[in-house]
Amino acid sequence: MPIKQNIKIAVDAIVFGYSDNTLYVLLVRQKYGELKKTWVLPGGFVKDEESLTDAVNRELHEEAGIKVNYLEQLYTFGDDIKRDHRGRVVSVAYFGLVNPKELKLIADTDAEDAQWFPVDAIPKLGYDHKDMINLAKERLKSKLTYQPIGFDLLEHEFLFSDLENLYTTILETGIDRRNFRKKILSFDLLEETDRISSSGSGRPARYFKFNKKKYQKLSKEGFYFEIKLV
Amino acid sequence: MPIKQNIKIAVDAIVFGYSDNTLYVLLVRQKYGELKKTWVLPGGFVKDEESLTDAVNRELHEEAGIKVNYLEQLYTFGDDIKRDHRGRVVSVAYFGLVNPKELKLIADTDAEDAQWFPVDAIPKLGYDHKDMINLAKERLKSKLTYQPIGFDLLEHEFLFSDLENLYTTILETGIDRRNFRKKILSFDLLEETDRISSSGSGRPARYFKFNKKKYQKLSKEGFYFEIKLV
Repeated sequence: MPIKQNIKIAVDAIVFGYSDNTLYVLLVRQKYGELKKTWVLPGGFVKDEESLTDAVNRELHEEAGIKVNYLEQLYTFGDDIKRDHRGRVVSVAYFGLVNPKELKLIADTDAEDAQWFPVDAIPKLGYDHKDMINLAKERLKSKLTYQPIGFDLLEHEFLFSDLENLYTTILETGIDRRNFRKKILSFDLLEETDRISSSGSGRPARYFKFNKKKYQKLSKEGFYFEIKLV
Repeated sequence: MPIKQNIKIAVDAIVFGYSDNTLYVLLVRQKYGELKKTWVLPGGFVKDEESLTDAVNRELHEEAGIKVNYLEQLYTFGDDIKRDHRGRVVSVAYFGLVNPKELKLIADTDAEDAQWFPVDAIPKLGYDHKDMINLAKERLKSKLTYQPIGFDLLEHEFLFSDLENLYTTILETGIDRRNFRKKILSFDLLEETDRISSSGSGRPARYFKFNKKKYQKLSKEGFYFEIKLV
């Protein structure tokens, strides 16, 4: 191509995990360069022959050994032309969710270079990665109210109280528990399992599964997964 | 930067205009190269020293002489690595709205290279620009139901029936006119003007203005501009 352009293109991933009433975000420690040892989001330069999505998945695999449950494009950061000290880099940020199993995978190894941080206790980050996380948090909060993405953060089988806690934790708000339960059950998208929880001091509770196929079918027909908490 | 990368970055703009119950999109005729004379979206390569937003505004000015009322990032197209026949190009697509004055500006000149097309009568387009328009149409439809962006497509002063027609035209659906009027007026964001319409066969109607400042203030306080048509 005749055009001369000195801009590089990168991808970055804001991956959230959820466990025990805490929302986590995945960070990696920069290995080289001026920002060596600084915590940053997983990401890197796109290869000439790979799609943007492949680039994100590759970086997540290489840098943290994880596979996301859900991935979508968040926003492309390219208005601040000095956002990278090495030169002009435009970064396409992606927003991902993992289930608790993937969350534990890293925590269980002694991986020095990849770690889950509670979103309320994020260390000083390189680049504009704090802005990326803030935008991703907003997107997550907003999507929870109109798409069933919360289930991508839970175990395959979960207690109703787990779902409730996930909503209150991430939305940072109290909810009317009775209305919430009524609303969620009215969608008829949760299936009862045979499994009963016996732990805890409360009475035994049943585990549920989310029927994703049914949701996808309904969604095509115009169904709207809308959760109002106020 | 030590990294070798042979990917270029471009911006493209899907700009909508509205007039007389028709939604228009702005297209330009490619001037050079293999796709010469093909209709495409306005856009081009980003300069090393300009922000992405500046690049879009510059291209819109250079290629069509227009200024948008509203602009937001839509999506970055970079998964299809063959989307541009000239080599790998990742394009950040923006979504813009103009008021009817800007719409008429181009129509009034004999500009051969920039033209408004009704979205229902778009010619064969180059690249993946048809996909970009489809995505932008979806975004526009969805935003109309939760943000007051419809006003960016209308004259500063408008009849209530203009607003109603805009919604039915773009959402391609009938609406319950009484509920729509009641809902919109309940927001208390429309101001009556002194101007009265005397044309047409119906009874005289009053012109309104949208109070954007009030909306922005309310919006910060958590107000939600929600229009349900069904």
